[in-house]
Amino acid sequence: MTDDILLSDLDRDGILRLTLNDARRRNALSEAMLEALGRVMAEAGADPAVRVIILAANGPAYCAGHDLKEMTAGRADPDRGRAYFTKAMARCSRVMQAIVNCPKPVVAEVTGIATAAGCQLVASCDLALAAETAQFSTPGVHIGLFCSTPMVALSRNVGNKHAMEMLLTGDMVSATRAAEIGLVNRVAPPEALREATMALARKIASKSSMTLATGKRAFYAQREMPLAEAYDYASQVMVENMLAWDAEEGIGAFIEKRAPEWQDR
Amino acid sequence: MTDDILLSDLDRDGILRLTLNDARRRNALSEAMLEALGRVMAEAGADPAVRVIILAANGPAYCAGHDLKEMTAGRADPDRGRAYFTKAMARCSRVMQAIVNCPKPVVAEVTGIATAAGCQLVASCDLALAAETAQFSTPGVHIGLFCSTPMVALSRNVGNKHAMEMLLTGDMVSATRAAEIGLVNRVAPPEALREATMALARKIASKSSMTLATGKRAFYAQREMPLAEAYDYASQVMVENMLAWDAEEGIGAFIEKRAPEWQDR
Amino acid sequence: MTDDILLSDLDRDGILRLTLNDARRRNALSEAMLEALGRVMAEAGADPAVRVIILAANGPAYCAGHDLKEMTAGRADPDRGRAYFTKAMARCSRVMQAIVNCPKPVVAEVTGIATAAGCQLVASCDLALAAETAQFSTPGVHIGLFCSTPMVALSRNVGNKHAMEMLLTGDMVSATRAAEIGLVNRVAPPEALREATMALARKIASKSSMTLATGKRAFYAQREMPLAEAYDYASQVMVENMLAWDAEEGIGAFIEKRAPEWQDR
Repeated sequence: MTDDILLSDLDRDGILRLTLNDARRRNALSEAMLEALGRVMAEAGADPAVRVIILAANGPAYCAGHDLKEMTAGRADPDRGRAYFTKAMARCSRVMQAIVNCPKPVVAEVTGIATAAGCQLVASCDLALAAETAQFSTPGVHIGLFCSTPMVALSRNVGNKHAMEMLLTGDMVSATRAAEIGLVNRVAPPEALREATMALARKIASKSSMTLATGKRAFYAQREMPLAEAYDYASQVMVENMLAWDAEEGIGAFIEKRAPEWQDR
Repeated sequence: MTDDILLSDLDRDGILRLTLNDARRRNALSEAMLEALGRVMAEAGADPAVRVIILAANGPAYCAGHDLKEMTAGRADPDRGRAYFTKAMARCSRVMQAIVNCPKPVVAEVTGIATAAGCQLVASCDLALAAETAQFSTPGVHIGLFCSTPMVALSRNVGNKHAMEMLLTGDMVSATRAAEIGLVNRVAPPEALREATMALARKIASKSSMTLATGKRAFYAQREMPLAEAYDYASQVMVENMLAWDAEEGIGAFIEKRAPEWQDR
Repeated sequence: MTDDILLSDLDRDGILRLTLNDARRRNALSEAMLEALGRVMAEAGADPAVRVIILAANGPAYCAGHDLKEMTAGRADPDRGRAYFTKAMARCSRVMQAIVNCPKPVVAEVTGIATAAGCQLVASCDLALAAETAQFSTPGVHIGLFCSTPMVALSRNVGNKHAMEMLLTGDMVSATRAAEIGLVNRVAPPEALREATMALARKIASKSSMTLATGKRAFYAQREMPLAEAYDYASQVMVENMLAWDAEEGIGAFIEKRAPEWQDR
């Protein structure tokens, strides 16, 4: 589960720390990086030892989005790149949705600049903490290529006016502003960020993985339903959750004022 | 319209103050409480004397959500509680939607801790004011039972990242933070909360009940439609509203610079 | 492209400044104003010389919404105004959606009070800057006529609790509060507002119009889709955008560290 461009480290608490490790290319979402991410997310989703995933990065840039040199090389194809671009977009969208659909909570630890699909990566995570020095942008307009796929994730995190300002201007947004508009949960001093993410991850890792998986899936599913349908669906989810071992144990432990013992721990 | 566990007081301005009054059980949404709430909401919705509803609570806890002892007792059934839980979730979801569908505006006056379905209750109200000392959480993950029905209401009030933080950690959120993320409208010092809620309720109670009912229903209906459909629907609502007596009177009064006389007052 | 009640000025950067110019009627959205706005938006949308649109206003009021005297006159019709109101609402909703559907970004420059459909106008623009002294409200409840069409736009910009507070109370909201809840992007001192809007517009006008049009259309379209569908759609948009001349030029210029030359400039 390691890779040169994507480091992977699982600790005793079940926290899987993935680290984008291609600082030379500003951790661009190259073909190789997307494939590594997709593979590791799939493995981590299925691995009972993994309880929470942190998505961190080495180097000054958190993630610079697509690898423009790779993309440009695709233009040499006889179809001017249409097939290549189609495949590249599908690959990237698949990884972003794999984060949303992963049964384990995913936390972005944003140390540096997150741009374009890098900003989308942060928006796609369930939670995000950022260094006060981190910055965010969807700068596609600078190069004639609107950040249309990044905006899918962005616009599901921040209000229309704020999303449009980022998309139409391409301007950098500070970490503090990103927290104000809802793109990240909160900021921390750069030297305290890792400990803040770890504390958050440890807290979540102490919960029942079954419960977290149930809830995360239900969260994104009900968000797309009308209210009455969402209540019908969520009520069914609650009933199944109530009947699962971990809820019986958890509620029993609560009533008996003792610590619960999750089935998968 | 009174009940031991749910106090009900209608004043001369048409403000119905409902007070959860089961402090011993932290105002849990027990079967009895949900039935009382459901009945009173239905009666208040149909009663022309009621113009606005305030949902307040006695005791240090605003509402602790489901009654876990009642739920646990259901496990003794031959089906391990499946039928009981299904009925309990349906009952609770019905009450939450009754608040949304009630033709009268409903304002939560949150004096203390609002957790799980108690937090959902606040999120389901049209408006919410909170004491600076109030706190909010969706702590189901602590007991292996994700707050899946509370999140239906929560996620329709606050952004994804903020909702997920509450749901995945179960952490308490301060009233000030709740106001920042949109779960409540604003906060007030504990000793000033009741007067703040009353002032807000009086202001709303002075409007035409027909107009408020028309608008509230249309608000939640159009929110679930695509833009073009929402405009078609809202335009029809506007036309019917224009043709109603209260709008003719209200617009006439405005042009003549006098106070309007609503039909139902 | 000028009109007495709607001034129109296109500068060398492609910034079209539209100015509501009916201060005597508080820039009400009268029949004449809506027709002028609809016509000018259609022309501007089709005019390659127009790159960004600013929607400004003369006089102390930015826009007071519908012209109530005109609406009231409609009541004299044999059908008590039903046909007239239906036409008026359709006309207004068409203009609001014309702003959303216009291929050029539209920026509101809110100098004064924006109420009812005037508030809707601000909410319908892609971006909005406001003078610190500007104010916003949806005051229909004061006259028995709920702001049902304004709320379509309002509720797509601000959270449910905030929208409901504006709608149920009709209270004025300060520019600072409007920025906090997401109705406007930010505020500026009154004397600095115009320069702030112009700077924002110039920045956007320097981008490829094709790219902006592609992205703006995709933004509002994907916002109404479930996640997986949104990604499929946005991925196709990205592929077509990649194959367009401006993206090839923009990416090439970026890699070669030179300024891009857009096709339509």
